[in-house]
Amino acid sequence: MSTTKVAEPTLGSKLAAEAVGTFLLVFSIMGTGVFGAFFMVPEAAPVGGTVPIAVALGLGVALTIGVYAFGPISGGHFNPAVTLGLAAAGRFEWRNVGGYLVAQVVGGLLATTVAMAIGVFGPDGWLAAAQASGFASNGYGDHSPGGFGLVAAMIIEVVAVAIFLWVIISVTHPDRPTPFAGVAIGSTLFLLILIAIPVDNASLNPARSLATALYGGGDALMQLWVFIVFPIIGALIAGYTYRAVFDNVKR
Amino acid sequence: MSTTKVAEPTLGSKLAAEAVGTFLLVFSIMGTGVFGAFFMVPEAAPVGGTVPIAVALGLGVALTIGVYAFGPISGGHFNPAVTLGLAAAGRFEWRNVGGYLVAQVVGGLLATTVAMAIGVFGPDGWLAAAQASGFASNGYGDHSPGGFGLVAAMIIEVVAVAIFLWVIISVTHPDRPTPFAGVAIGSTLFLLILIAIPVDNASLNPARSLATALYGGGDALMQLWVFIVFPIIGALIAGYTYRAVFDNVKR
Amino acid sequence: MSTTKVAEPTLGSKLAAEAVGTFLLVFSIMGTGVFGAFFMVPEAAPVGGTVPIAVALGLGVALTIGVYAFGPISGGHFNPAVTLGLAAAGRFEWRNVGGYLVAQVVGGLLATTVAMAIGVFGPDGWLAAAQASGFASNGYGDHSPGGFGLVAAMIIEVVAVAIFLWVIISVTHPDRPTPFAGVAIGSTLFLLILIAIPVDNASLNPARSLATALYGGGDALMQLWVFIVFPIIGALIAGYTYRAVFDNVKR
Amino acid sequence: MSTTKVAEPTLGSKLAAEAVGTFLLVFSIMGTGVFGAFFMVPEAAPVGGTVPIAVALGLGVALTIGVYAFGPISGGHFNPAVTLGLAAAGRFEWRNVGGYLVAQVVGGLLATTVAMAIGVFGPDGWLAAAQASGFASNGYGDHSPGGFGLVAAMIIEVVAVAIFLWVIISVTHPDRPTPFAGVAIGSTLFLLILIAIPVDNASLNPARSLATALYGGGDALMQLWVFIVFPIIGALIAGYTYRAVFDNVKR
Repeated sequence: MSTTKVAEPTLGSKLAAEAVGTFLLVFSIMGTGVFGAFFMVPEAAPVGGTVPIAVALGLGVALTIGVYAFGPISGGHFNPAVTLGLAAAGRFEWRNVGGYLVAQVVGGLLATTVAMAIGVFGPDGWLAAAQASGFASNGYGDHSPGGFGLVAAMIIEVVAVAIFLWVIISVTHPDRPTPFAGVAIGSTLFLLILIAIPVDNASLNPARSLATALYGGGDALMQLWVFIVFPIIGALIAGYTYRAVFDNVKR
Repeated sequence: MSTTKVAEPTLGSKLAAEAVGTFLLVFSIMGTGVFGAFFMVPEAAPVGGTVPIAVALGLGVALTIGVYAFGPISGGHFNPAVTLGLAAAGRFEWRNVGGYLVAQVVGGLLATTVAMAIGVFGPDGWLAAAQASGFASNGYGDHSPGGFGLVAAMIIEVVAVAIFLWVIISVTHPDRPTPFAGVAIGSTLFLLILIAIPVDNASLNPARSLATALYGGGDALMQLWVFIVFPIIGALIAGYTYRAVFDNVKR
Repeated sequence: MSTTKVAEPTLGSKLAAEAVGTFLLVFSIMGTGVFGAFFMVPEAAPVGGTVPIAVALGLGVALTIGVYAFGPISGGHFNPAVTLGLAAAGRFEWRNVGGYLVAQVVGGLLATTVAMAIGVFGPDGWLAAAQASGFASNGYGDHSPGGFGLVAAMIIEVVAVAIFLWVIISVTHPDRPTPFAGVAIGSTLFLLILIAIPVDNASLNPARSLATALYGGGDALMQLWVFIVFPIIGALIAGYTYRAVFDNVKR
Repeated sequence: MSTTKVAEPTLGSKLAAEAVGTFLLVFSIMGTGVFGAFFMVPEAAPVGGTVPIAVALGLGVALTIGVYAFGPISGGHFNPAVTLGLAAAGRFEWRNVGGYLVAQVVGGLLATTVAMAIGVFGPDGWLAAAQASGFASNGYGDHSPGGFGLVAAMIIEVVAVAIFLWVIISVTHPDRPTPFAGVAIGSTLFLLILIAIPVDNASLNPARSLATALYGGGDALMQLWVFIVFPIIGALIAGYTYRAVFDNVKR
């Protein structure tokens, strides 16, 4: 600490930061969407009421926190789609993608597992009810909160993740960085989650979808591929197109 | 990127930024005001309940995001009234007004069109109900959420847009710029939209009103002129008066 | 603008800034507490429901906006108690207090007057009902939203305004200023208004209380003195004590 | 003030800042969780409805305010667990821990005492009902808002406080400080309180638990030890582990 040059974090620190940040994101879904504060009140549940806004707000805030607290260590992705989109945009080394993805999946699973552990000491029947309702998993058709079909889920995941990545790439642009990047990125997640919840319960993050599906039952696992494939497609499109559209500068 | 001087974005980049930002604003209205999260719950709908606060919050957040992400490219207007008001205040070149207005209208229409596409794969009858309710269009009289008449809509649009422009011109003032401009501008839109929703469903932005009216049916189109003319009047008044009132400095 | 030194705003500019900022504060109360979005829904009204949080949020956001937009011109008081407290703390010239107070009262009255004008074109009976309910005036006893008495109103106004002034004086301290002052000051108002609404509908600002009482009927005018006297007492206590408690530094 | 070097605040100033900040935190719980705005509306109460989000938001905002206003004086702990965790992390002198803890306990008790005084002048039966409902005390089992048991309360307090401390230590890291620390720290408290309310009414702060338990009756006092011991365990774990996990840098 007596050196003037800030030391580069080790890969181990970076992976720990990605795991903790993803833990925070998924744990916020558990706390706002599954735990008792809202879940037990029928009129506040899935569609309408206060649950969607609480879940979206929790996720947005969790991401803003993560970006300021752990972003300086790992870059603050906490999401395989973000890692892949940034790699496609030339902002992240492809060789580190694998490690980041593993750390994110581990962090997400740890969050749902701690939620399960707390649920074991919850009121009678709470855990069974939470799992029967899907444990906040993503879904389409019968499992869409608003009754939207597969194609609607595909469109919303591709469009929302593409906007998300464009914002991330723009606010962290080396030519025009802003200290408000964390606020802007978290706010974007809040807004897009709020929009996507009625369609497919809002994934935008394959690690989040995987973490909830593992405790959410067979249908959640059957539909999981949609929430791995389409967020990644949206992210790759955004990563590869950003330069062509917005970096077309006069030099 | 190896140059020390940041390159000026091309006009094409600027128009793309305006289109994407306006897309985000209008898409946030679709997501909070039309999609299922709130729309399907009668007690949360139009007047009272959580819809107005969700719509206002979504719009404010969308604008803050847009200002930080795309503002450095295009200035972050996303609204014909803002572009015209800034031109009147001497902050934007009149010769670029036309291109910006076209980009904003295109971005807005794209947002309502994507919402329509998602709606096609929504639950039975969803799209027809959303259109029958006006598709979040602005309106007065029978189409005012709170039953307010034409004159009330005229007053609120002129007053609200004038305040909006005064804040924008002030927080981006070359003598006293602030990195909080994006927060202040987005927060102002949030507050003014929240106030104006019961009166006329809150336009403040002709591109937003046009984008929703095109899918909102005949009455929405008939009343559309109000939400093009009066926001622009408010913006021009603010642009021309700001200097006289606030730049009357001792030199 | 070609000078490197920023010019000092004229007194006229400062008074205009105070009037516009106070207009924004009081207009936000009209929009969230009186206009149709929430007012017309019984379950969202006075005690409980979404009205208190919407009013508090609107006021906090309005103050944050005002501090960033007009604070660099006038200091951003928008409240006679703040002006007097800052003068007591040695942060504002006593000779300018009179002009600021007049500008604040004018700005507040303009806001309730514009709200009345919009109400004239509102649905039948709306304006009469809004006035009969007090037009968002402050009150104690029968006019306290939660049924609290005069002494409770006195305590909450003195304590809340004292905390408010301590925060304002601290975040604008010349030894340790922060660009987050606007966020901190607006957030403090949000929090204190939320706490004080059930007790006496939350004044903390004599200009706000005067502006609503003038349209709120005889009882509102009869109780008005409480909301002029006690916020000012709290502000003066805070202004005079801050230095003794927090500026007791080792030099 | 004419010196260029900012003077170090005295210990007395620091203890006053800790007491005022803790007062603000606990007073915000009184205002959002006990006072009339929400408390009197059954459907908004304990589990579900708007109370949990209002309490969490109030606490998060109060902490952000405190960090910006009083953090430059005392460091802005306002919580014995934070003080102990920072000492464990090598960020705070052990010799000052005792004084800080006393100031925090005093500030918290003052807040519940002022709330009691206001309650004396409240509507008939209000104070008795508020105390009978626990006066916002923490609890498990029959006193858990969501019916969660002792082990669930232990897990959530340890996990939530550990995350809280990791964020605090990270955003105030001497190698990578950020002016957004106050926003990040307050937002983290908001999120963790929202998650923990259904489990045990969310302590995370022994001074807060003590302040409410003293007016909350015998059961609150009986269960108080849990909300003193486990937040401190979580904080100490976080303080001692942070360096090993995140400061493992290449030098």
